[in-house]
Amino acid sequence: MHDKIRIGVLGASGYTGADLVRLAARHPHVEIAALTANTHAGKEMGAVFPHLAILDLPRLKAWEEVDWSELDAVFCGLPHGTTQEITAAVLSANPKARIIDMSADFRLRDASVYAEWYGHEHQAPALQEEAVYGLTEHYRALIKDARLIACPGCYPTAVLMALLPLVRQNMIDARDLIIDAKSGVTGAGRGLKQNTLFAEAGEGLSPYSVGKHRHAPEIEQEIGVAAGMPVTVNFTPHLIPMSRGELVTCYVRLGEGVTAGDLRQRLVEDYASEPFVHVLPEGGVPQTQNVRGSNYVQIGVFPDRIPGRALVIAAIDNLVKGSAGQALQNMNVAFGLEEGEGLLQLALFP
Amino acid sequence: MHDKIRIGVLGASGYTGADLVRLAARHPHVEIAALTANTHAGKEMGAVFPHLAILDLPRLKAWEEVDWSELDAVFCGLPHGTTQEITAAVLSANPKARIIDMSADFRLRDASVYAEWYGHEHQAPALQEEAVYGLTEHYRALIKDARLIACPGCYPTAVLMALLPLVRQNMIDARDLIIDAKSGVTGAGRGLKQNTLFAEAGEGLSPYSVGKHRHAPEIEQEIGVAAGMPVTVNFTPHLIPMSRGELVTCYVRLGEGVTAGDLRQRLVEDYASEPFVHVLPEGGVPQTQNVRGSNYVQIGVFPDRIPGRALVIAAIDNLVKGSAGQALQNMNVAFGLEEGEGLLQLALFP
Amino acid sequence: MHDKIRIGVLGASGYTGADLVRLAARHPHVEIAALTANTHAGKEMGAVFPHLAILDLPRLKAWEEVDWSELDAVFCGLPHGTTQEITAAVLSANPKARIIDMSADFRLRDASVYAEWYGHEHQAPALQEEAVYGLTEHYRALIKDARLIACPGCYPTAVLMALLPLVRQNMIDARDLIIDAKSGVTGAGRGLKQNTLFAEAGEGLSPYSVGKHRHAPEIEQEIGVAAGMPVTVNFTPHLIPMSRGELVTCYVRLGEGVTAGDLRQRLVEDYASEPFVHVLPEGGVPQTQNVRGSNYVQIGVFPDRIPGRALVIAAIDNLVKGSAGQALQNMNVAFGLEEGEGLLQLALFP
Amino acid sequence: MHDKIRIGVLGASGYTGADLVRLAARHPHVEIAALTANTHAGKEMGAVFPHLAILDLPRLKAWEEVDWSELDAVFCGLPHGTTQEITAAVLSANPKARIIDMSADFRLRDASVYAEWYGHEHQAPALQEEAVYGLTEHYRALIKDARLIACPGCYPTAVLMALLPLVRQNMIDARDLIIDAKSGVTGAGRGLKQNTLFAEAGEGLSPYSVGKHRHAPEIEQEIGVAAGMPVTVNFTPHLIPMSRGELVTCYVRLGEGVTAGDLRQRLVEDYASEPFVHVLPEGGVPQTQNVRGSNYVQIGVFPDRIPGRALVIAAIDNLVKGSAGQALQNMNVAFGLEEGEGLLQLALFP
Repeated sequence: MHDKIRIGVLGASGYTGADLVRLAARHPHVEIAALTANTHAGKEMGAVFPHLAILDLPRLKAWEEVDWSELDAVFCGLPHGTTQEITAAVLSANPKARIIDMSADFRLRDASVYAEWYGHEHQAPALQEEAVYGLTEHYRALIKDARLIACPGCYPTAVLMALLPLVRQNMIDARDLIIDAKSGVTGAGRGLKQNTLFAEAGEGLSPYSVGKHRHAPEIEQEIGVAAGMPVTVNFTPHLIPMSRGELVTCYVRLGEGVTAGDLRQRLVEDYASEPFVHVLPEGGVPQTQNVRGSNYVQIGVFPDRIPGRALVIAAIDNLVKGSAGQALQNMNVAFGLEEGEGLLQLALFP
Repeated sequence: MHDKIRIGVLGASGYTGADLVRLAARHPHVEIAALTANTHAGKEMGAVFPHLAILDLPRLKAWEEVDWSELDAVFCGLPHGTTQEITAAVLSANPKARIIDMSADFRLRDASVYAEWYGHEHQAPALQEEAVYGLTEHYRALIKDARLIACPGCYPTAVLMALLPLVRQNMIDARDLIIDAKSGVTGAGRGLKQNTLFAEAGEGLSPYSVGKHRHAPEIEQEIGVAAGMPVTVNFTPHLIPMSRGELVTCYVRLGEGVTAGDLRQRLVEDYASEPFVHVLPEGGVPQTQNVRGSNYVQIGVFPDRIPGRALVIAAIDNLVKGSAGQALQNMNVAFGLEEGEGLLQLALFP
Repeated sequence: MHDKIRIGVLGASGYTGADLVRLAARHPHVEIAALTANTHAGKEMGAVFPHLAILDLPRLKAWEEVDWSELDAVFCGLPHGTTQEITAAVLSANPKARIIDMSADFRLRDASVYAEWYGHEHQAPALQEEAVYGLTEHYRALIKDARLIACPGCYPTAVLMALLPLVRQNMIDARDLIIDAKSGVTGAGRGLKQNTLFAEAGEGLSPYSVGKHRHAPEIEQEIGVAAGMPVTVNFTPHLIPMSRGELVTCYVRLGEGVTAGDLRQRLVEDYASEPFVHVLPEGGVPQTQNVRGSNYVQIGVFPDRIPGRALVIAAIDNLVKGSAGQALQNMNVAFGLEEGEGLLQLALFP
Repeated sequence: MHDKIRIGVLGASGYTGADLVRLAARHPHVEIAALTANTHAGKEMGAVFPHLAILDLPRLKAWEEVDWSELDAVFCGLPHGTTQEITAAVLSANPKARIIDMSADFRLRDASVYAEWYGHEHQAPALQEEAVYGLTEHYRALIKDARLIACPGCYPTAVLMALLPLVRQNMIDARDLIIDAKSGVTGAGRGLKQNTLFAEAGEGLSPYSVGKHRHAPEIEQEIGVAAGMPVTVNFTPHLIPMSRGELVTCYVRLGEGVTAGDLRQRLVEDYASEPFVHVLPEGGVPQTQNVRGSNYVQIGVFPDRIPGRALVIAAIDNLVKGSAGQALQNMNVAFGLEEGEGLLQLALFP
């Protein structure tokens, strides 16, 4: 039996932070020891997220007030660009702490790509070297011993779960990937923006960040690693009038002699023992409703009417498998727990 | 340590049935041994509810095919009017089974009231005598030993949680209760009806069943028991464009010298040790978002600007505390388990 | 044939301002001559509201830049508290201009009530004397010649349309009015607030401003005028997960010998020649869907199961009949046009 | 001045029928002379669509009861497969009538393609010969004199408005078109289906009819005509949790030396004088919100990060430009009226 893992959650006033608390509070081997939210320091968590008011949680504080030495794991749900420095500070104060970062700060292996897409120099390039890309199913062995785990973005999680096994086997052409992505509004965070107001986002849909979304280089990086060559993909996200959920429709060109059925078979085999991955039977349609609030992934494969092409479609909950759930899954791996511990809630449907 | 409780779920193709499966499948002391859905007999549960396809569940069968002797508890999520006969059959085949009925078939203590509101004679008046009204927090002692538990309707659950302690203490006038109720669309079930289509129910709201909703006599029955006299209440439900959630805004007349603060204090004290009831601090506003997908109840009390009046407002998830969750809570009570076992998931917000 | 009425819209970057432009742009006798939005001065209207980009509209300017002498009518959709001074300035520059104010600045006849509820002294008490309350169907004769028309709030519009004829005839008790109100999210405006984010307001509902909403004194004022005595009402608004629409469920005590049918009959007769008021036949249920985007009002009357009580329920579109539509209706009256001119679009359903 | 055009609407109990009535009732040159809905024959239209109850409309009848000789134009909003015979009957009874069909019955020029996709032989191949494809902007000259106008499907309308000018000029490769389409739930009609219930379609999204949607052959037909060769396209629709609106994201391969800017310029020029087409300036993002309830089309063009590719994105209201609005637009053309007559309402936003 493990002692409880003492965790801190930085950025607990955001949606990913709150969802991590939601899950961690019911994890049998976790104790939530610190919560930070600098603009809300001093408040109760329940004042910021009333659905968590029934919990007995530590009061929110500024991250500068945290005693890092008392924490076994630190989850970072901070805005992009702020975690690099904090991570360095945490690890310097407590070298045994495990950092599980849900931001984008350590996802891009190449600091120059980071600088290009995030508009400023990387603040901790040495730590970047050490960071492990936290797509659990594909980097489990590295995550086990990593000190710094960079959890993937929500879109990359869905895309890579769908495509990595196929690219690795050269079953699809990594240079011809068109990824039409759709996300609920929580993907934009809890910050106040006009386009995420109910009256603006409701009853309508639109693409956004066409040709310039920051998850594109992250997808390209990992597809490129699997393909063994640099790739450029089309990645086009759309904002959907729902709170949670993400669906990626990937249009792929099949390798010579490969069929859509072969793709499905490959995914079924690769993911056979994965607790959170559900490759649907032939004809099965991924729906974000089916994974809402859960850590599960649904993947479906379809032949295209255009010969030599196919569709691979994946659905996740952007806040769970796309962020907080996967972060906890990584913690389970890193601390040698059952991987599903605290994460087996079923989807909330309807 | 308990052996697993072997349960059957009758009417597993409805929303309450499915939500019971969602929760029961993760309950550490429950084994789902039988699932029925007569129109879907022979199918996998995952074909009817794809979000449950990852579970290893028994195939759906007709209720006539169930071997009742192998079940410890039978949950009934059948359409109103069909459970009376089935319950008799189950108990005759297995007198030790516990029946936990989520329909309205055994909620009304007076068979003539049942006949008046449901349009046909009660089919099992003797069993009705024996049935215990399953509002857990208020009938716990009886539920412990009951063979037949009639779980309250969703609206009555919210209303009675808010008002029973106050009526009992004569702090509010039971003859002057105006209950404006609002529910998400799942309250209408999964049956195909024009008014619950997305395009009809979305982006709009309306009252329904004004002056004739079947939950009115149920509320009146229980308020009447607490008040020690027959009462007639105004109960007016509205259909809200959301899937889950129920809010009741109760307009009450205060007893002589009683204040809104007194009501709140009463509720705080009565519910002090209840795991699922959250009486909000002064000014706290119940929101269905805060209990979505969970078994929790939020209750808030407000003074009215009209002297001598107050508001008591409660929010629940209609499918959980309003149905499947409370049913499981009753099972926990009936089988001597921790009452929160399998039910402590936090609300899914956002 | 009229020459075109040259109008200015102050506060065109808010939802009511935009809805006024939407309607006015297709009004056959209106020319939109000036649009103001101080924080967006210099922009095209289409940059602020892309659905209006196809129109040929004047560029947004600061209100200080408007040449008031070129305008026949000025619509004010400014935040509460700013219109009092501007109105004085406009009328001083152009005494023949008609001011049609959609804010709350001139709705309260008693300046001390204004000061109490809005937190500052009234800035133009003399103009307040002159202001006419712009509930078209009930103040038409005064509106005809008014220089300053204070359009009602959205909630008061719905409530007063439902109740004024009944209070005036003493058919219901003005001292015992419980008004449970529900509104879509646009009622909160386009300003950035956390509680109107899609992820916060979606899939949930809650009351707000319980016992302290500013529309309460406005309702009380007009009910009081009709009743011939001061009244205090219960008015409890709720935020509903939809963009447009407002429904008020009014719980009323009937006068001696009066029936719900009598109420309905009274409304039918009083509104017989009104183009925008639809008193539903017995059993007819008002739905906000049925008036979405339109200037129509639906009113339904129901008996209560509690003897001596009834329900009067009204549905409007909060931005149209509740604001911009009624403002244009008032303009039509003030300029001697057909009252329905430019306002007869049917509801957008579904 | 025209006399009023006397129209009949067959299938008035469906969403497209109702939207046609909504628009036609306010068209200055139209008289609604007959409404049919066989399963609702004898009812008032307001009983079937309460938002239309304020209109003075003819009672619904069975189509067999219509006196075709009194009609100038017949709009058919019937289920696919029933219009072929009815059209023959109408034209035989009144050879001067103009038929404006909103179903799929006459859209496919090749009867064998029709039989393949709709599962039965075409019932009126001679009439098919005569039918004109009713994409107004592209077939205006033929529509002017057509007796039978086959209005396009909603998806084909959006796709073809975006792509036809580009394919015709050979600026994009007609053999490499990937069309990711998204539609609100009204696209599925008012029939009772489980997947269009609020609780099923809300807060989630999924693809449907992958590789087998009946709008694919229609798109291929018209793209093929423009390209001068047979083409197969990828067309993948998704169901979005909103009532109205349709967005198509078209991934295209550019011709040699062609840029995204060239595509935009072509569209701007081709549609320069079109009242309903808005080609957005560079960077402008189509949103279904911006066209909701209106007959307008928004088109945006974006470069792809993959060299040699681009995106063309179009947004329409599926029930208006995608059906009833375009049908009325065609009537205006066919009867020599101003093309925008009765159709210039602006989008209802928010």
